[in-house]
Amino acid sequence: MDALSLHNPVFATYAQAASVMILKAVGMSWLTVIRMMQVGGGFRAPEDLRATPLNPVPRPGQLAPDERVERIRRIHLNDLENLPFFLVAGLLYVFSSPSLRVARWLFWSYVVTRLAHFVAYLTAQAHDVRAALWTVGSLILIYMAIASLAAALIQ
Amino acid sequence: MDALSLHNPVFATYAQAASVMILKAVGMSWLTVIRMMQVGGGFRAPEDLRATPLNPVPRPGQLAPDERVERIRRIHLNDLENLPFFLVAGLLYVFSSPSLRVARWLFWSYVVTRLAHFVAYLTAQAHDVRAALWTVGSLILIYMAIASLAAALIQ
Amino acid sequence: MDALSLHNPVFATYAQAASVMILKAVGMSWLTVIRMMQVGGGFRAPEDLRATPLNPVPRPGQLAPDERVERIRRIHLNDLENLPFFLVAGLLYVFSSPSLRVARWLFWSYVVTRLAHFVAYLTAQAHDVRAALWTVGSLILIYMAIASLAAALIQ
Repeated sequence: MDALSLHNPVFATYAQAASVMILKAVGMSWLTVIRMMQVGGGFRAPEDLRATPLNPVPRPGQLAPDERVERIRRIHLNDLENLPFFLVAGLLYVFSSPSLRVARWLFWSYVVTRLAHFVAYLTAQAHDVRAALWTVGSLILIYMAIASLAAALIQ
Repeated sequence: MDALSLHNPVFATYAQAASVMILKAVGMSWLTVIRMMQVGGGFRAPEDLRATPLNPVPRPGQLAPDERVERIRRIHLNDLENLPFFLVAGLLYVFSSPSLRVARWLFWSYVVTRLAHFVAYLTAQAHDVRAALWTVGSLILIYMAIASLAAALIQ
Repeated sequence: MDALSLHNPVFATYAQAASVMILKAVGMSWLTVIRMMQVGGGFRAPEDLRATPLNPVPRPGQLAPDERVERIRRIHLNDLENLPFFLVAGLLYVFSSPSLRVARWLFWSYVVTRLAHFVAYLTAQAHDVRAALWTVGSLILIYMAIASLAAALIQ
């Protein structure tokens, strides 16, 4: 059977987890937009001070950083540092022919800890909570990359 | 037929669109370099103030942000927030066996609106133009991720 | 033979190079954590000033940028601008059926110049050294994307 086929349950699990993580990352962009509209600021481009239907009454302070927007940007950057590598490491890991049981644990633990990391960061939990949740995902990522490397080396 | 084969026209379309988007992203790095050399500044590392063949006469202000460089960096960051996820979502979407007609529309609309977003941002068009172009691409990305998730769940 | 199989030596080479690059990127996150703990600062979230087991005696300056941490963040951002695109361009390049000899040269030259770029940036070598190493990787990336585009267009 092909490794990359939705009939391979390991790949199907990967495809599910990867789709959820992609939606999560895209959601951060939308959350940034929502916060910028709520706050009426946190913009970055000078031309955003021109009056438009979405910003009818501009004011100079709109280009200043706003913590409610910056918080979402920090969460987003953390996603950019993690998710693209999970998306490719997970795909390569499928080729190492892991057991379905282990693969499911790894993929869904990654998704759950990333979503919990988001909630912890959004609600400004103590640093150590955020760090612990990030660490689980990062260790899963390292494990999958090493398993993929090993499988590719011994072929 | 294998989903991932250039003989599959949906995958071939994906491979074309993905290659163009990769070249676009890499082009942002080069555009940053070009702008930094034109401006003679916008550098970020303290060691960039040492005299070298590429920077024969350093001056302290070279580490200050320069809007002509920062604009390219903002466009680049917007790419980092979008393109890696398009690249993987598009690949997963191929496995959902979409019609070639729909897949072509989605892939090329994504490419065209991202290139238009670049032109709008580079030329400092009003925020709403940029936002509208970004929104089309983001909705395509969300649609592809949901279609991929659905296809992986029903297998 | 399937293009995407570890029995295809071009894909196996890609999988090895990709895994190493993923581990490199994840390593940047850990290096940021290590530096923040060494420095006892360079934090970004306001809640990181709360006393926790990992930060028992907070002080206000911990949120100020610290060059030893910022240097790692700049290296990391450079990875985010390059590695996700290499990971996908490399995968697409496998479908263009390159010779194993050429593919090995490209994949490993990319890995070696990226690791050398890291060392050059970490040790604050002159800008031109860093630029030269980055340029090699970027040209490899451009070559692979163009080869993939050409292969997808002529099918």
